[in-house]
Amino acid sequence: MRLPTDDELLAQLAEYVAIASDSRSAPMETMREAAGWLAARLAFANGRVEETDGFPVVRGEWLGAPGAPTVLVYGHYDVQPTGDLAEWTTPPFQTVIDGDVVRGRGVTDDKGPVLLVLALAEAMLAADGALPVNLKFLIEGEEEIGSPHLPAYVRAHAAELAADLVISADGAMWRPSEPSLSVASKGLVAMDVVVTAADRDLHSGRYGGTVANPVHALAAVVASFHGPDGAVAVEGFYDGVDELTPERRAELDAVDFDEEAYRASVGVPEVAGEAGYSTLERLWERPTLEVNGITAGGKYSVIPHRAVAHVTCRLVGTQDPDAVAAAVTGHVRSLRLPGVEVAVHTDEGRVPAYRIDPEHPAIRSATAALEEVYPGQEVLLAVIAGTLPAATLFEDVLGAKTLFFSFATADEQHHAPNEFFRIRRFGEGMRAWRALWTGLAAWEPRAVAAVGVAS
Amino acid sequence: MRLPTDDELLAQLAEYVAIASDSRSAPMETMREAAGWLAARLAFANGRVEETDGFPVVRGEWLGAPGAPTVLVYGHYDVQPTGDLAEWTTPPFQTVIDGDVVRGRGVTDDKGPVLLVLALAEAMLAADGALPVNLKFLIEGEEEIGSPHLPAYVRAHAAELAADLVISADGAMWRPSEPSLSVASKGLVAMDVVVTAADRDLHSGRYGGTVANPVHALAAVVASFHGPDGAVAVEGFYDGVDELTPERRAELDAVDFDEEAYRASVGVPEVAGEAGYSTLERLWERPTLEVNGITAGGKYSVIPHRAVAHVTCRLVGTQDPDAVAAAVTGHVRSLRLPGVEVAVHTDEGRVPAYRIDPEHPAIRSATAALEEVYPGQEVLLAVIAGTLPAATLFEDVLGAKTLFFSFATADEQHHAPNEFFRIRRFGEGMRAWRALWTGLAAWEPRAVAAVGVAS
Repeated sequence: MRLPTDDELLAQLAEYVAIASDSRSAPMETMREAAGWLAARLAFANGRVEETDGFPVVRGEWLGAPGAPTVLVYGHYDVQPTGDLAEWTTPPFQTVIDGDVVRGRGVTDDKGPVLLVLALAEAMLAADGALPVNLKFLIEGEEEIGSPHLPAYVRAHAAELAADLVISADGAMWRPSEPSLSVASKGLVAMDVVVTAADRDLHSGRYGGTVANPVHALAAVVASFHGPDGAVAVEGFYDGVDELTPERRAELDAVDFDEEAYRASVGVPEVAGEAGYSTLERLWERPTLEVNGITAGGKYSVIPHRAVAHVTCRLVGTQDPDAVAAAVTGHVRSLRLPGVEVAVHTDEGRVPAYRIDPEHPAIRSATAALEEVYPGQEVLLAVIAGTLPAATLFEDVLGAKTLFFSFATADEQHHAPNEFFRIRRFGEGMRAWRALWTGLAAWEPRAVAAVGVAS
Repeated sequence: MRLPTDDELLAQLAEYVAIASDSRSAPMETMREAAGWLAARLAFANGRVEETDGFPVVRGEWLGAPGAPTVLVYGHYDVQPTGDLAEWTTPPFQTVIDGDVVRGRGVTDDKGPVLLVLALAEAMLAADGALPVNLKFLIEGEEEIGSPHLPAYVRAHAAELAADLVISADGAMWRPSEPSLSVASKGLVAMDVVVTAADRDLHSGRYGGTVANPVHALAAVVASFHGPDGAVAVEGFYDGVDELTPERRAELDAVDFDEEAYRASVGVPEVAGEAGYSTLERLWERPTLEVNGITAGGKYSVIPHRAVAHVTCRLVGTQDPDAVAAAVTGHVRSLRLPGVEVAVHTDEGRVPAYRIDPEHPAIRSATAALEEVYPGQEVLLAVIAGTLPAATLFEDVLGAKTLFFSFATADEQHHAPNEFFRIRRFGEGMRAWRALWTGLAAWEPRAVAAVGVAS
């Protein structure tokens, strides 16, 4: 059969990226347009837009393989905000081909990786009249804001969405140098720390030195989050985090990881982090607390009356997102901050860490599929240090494990200006998904589901 | 003679405020429009717009009183940025009368206080055909950005600007409860602290915990600026600051100052500041270091690659702005901040603290003028905790002291949203300026100048 060409997929991607489906700021109309565009691409599977209490989801199914396993393909059509437009070298909502990559907001997270699955399924159906497995599709529009309405939707439609396995087109290969599969991802809990003092901005001359400055207080809060050893200095933060076993340390040590290349790839003067751990251990095994942004006043002579920091904690092991939020809140409240008021607002989306057993049949089939597409290269079992909230949800509600099988790569400036996607991943991705579906068809569906639930 | 009415001045102010002369962001065209508008108001004094290397100045002079002193009236036609528009209850560039006050950006700082002087001089000339003193006018367009081009302009035009006394229509009465004169103002030096790490924003999951976060580092910098006692913890910062004498403490203690009313007026939960000093001592006698704004990232899941804090230090005594900038820079460089790069950029405008002798003839004439307008009220000699860079310049170049004689009041939300001006100050201000000019006319000009230079 003939797979869609890169040019065909790039033409589709150009249309799709042009719909600025930034779930933090786009109006409902734009989000509906993106959903509708995608539903049209799913015509072969009765693609349609379904309402939720937030932005709609895109659904579809092709169930013409009785007796074969049923796979729920998950992805999202929303994208991150652009951030500072001045830092983009190309227009964010216009795809630009730049050598081997295509640039634009969402090309890798995850409009490109979703598109290639849809194009593949359509082409296989057109060529063969059938697919090796039953496919259901659930493409949401709120992944980048923590999927606030997905849980209710999935619970309400659990029977329709029932599957033996979820395969997520979201996620990313760890790096471009070898094929990899993710066997774990970090959890997430996010919050805003809001410090207020006066009832308005005050002139820094006429009032300076007589009232507390919320920026100073917020800086004290942020500075207190980590100790001099780089560890998170919030009491109770590490509850549920197991110390690394010598075996796991040895496994990580065996991974071909060039710290200097990593440092250079992000352009930092030196790597930094929690004392006593290697960069890879910090990345894959240790929870983090990062301030994602801080805002107060402007560059002129005021004492701002309000200062806000947005904080995200990435969780591992059995860390409980609610307990972590409570620990951070308690820590902030325990600080002596005269003259200001401090509040901590925890975001709705709270996700525990996720794992899939490396022996799970889906991991074995996926490994075989990658070995077919990347002959002679060993498939690395990696950790997604990011968060995929849907995986926990699907396990809880559908009883199905999620295999992350994205052809994004983690260095493609996800969530940052100048996001890009390697064009070769279109073809590699389509060949790999085809091999995966073919491999999964040989499994007894119940066997897949049983291991999924048990692991 | 008939003074202009409030309605007449409000009509003029409406036109003037509508020209959004924000010197941080307005185009040259808008600044020229404001200057031109003001020059037309100075037609009685050959008003004109003159070029500088930045925004133009407005000049004028009426020199028809030979033998009488010459007064240079100073003010500015530029205004502060609006800040967050959401915090304004009225459109910033449209005057709105709200009971006893008029609202709008620049109404009190200092379009209103300048307008009343021009209207008064014009009316006096129309009524009497002469003024009691010679008047020169210099209204600049860069006061709110630290007057970067004023020094060169004043030096180049020193002979034309020569005066026995400068009277500034900029500044403010300390509070609405009694007439006051300023005998000192704080100096200023401002800087940006810029922390950078990676060469782009990084996903806080995919990279979190492995590279330094510039927000954490900047928070550590800001948190290090003050000790737990609220004092500035930068070595050398207090060089040139004399400890308060028991006499000065007694003077300040004798000022009728209601700390609880002050606290309530700005809406803070409690006053706060340097330990060992009263609120009034902190305000009038102690230097400060305030972070005016901080910016990094946005509210989404990144590790920002850059974080910036804008800092202003208000200076007293003989603190040297360059030495303070160097002390802050040295302090920041001395901090251990692994994995980031830190730079401190000091702004161009640097102003030492300013004083005028309370026995200066200008202060005595001004006191008499205020006593005439506010009968039965004692005139308070106060300190402007803000900064008036022009005063130092005029002393250096013209050898003339500056009397601050503004009819703004310090609580009128200078530099903040919802700036306002008390309408009654139009009439009070015109009567007071008239009495001041009349009083000054009785002085031997050389006597005024001599004390000015000597004090």
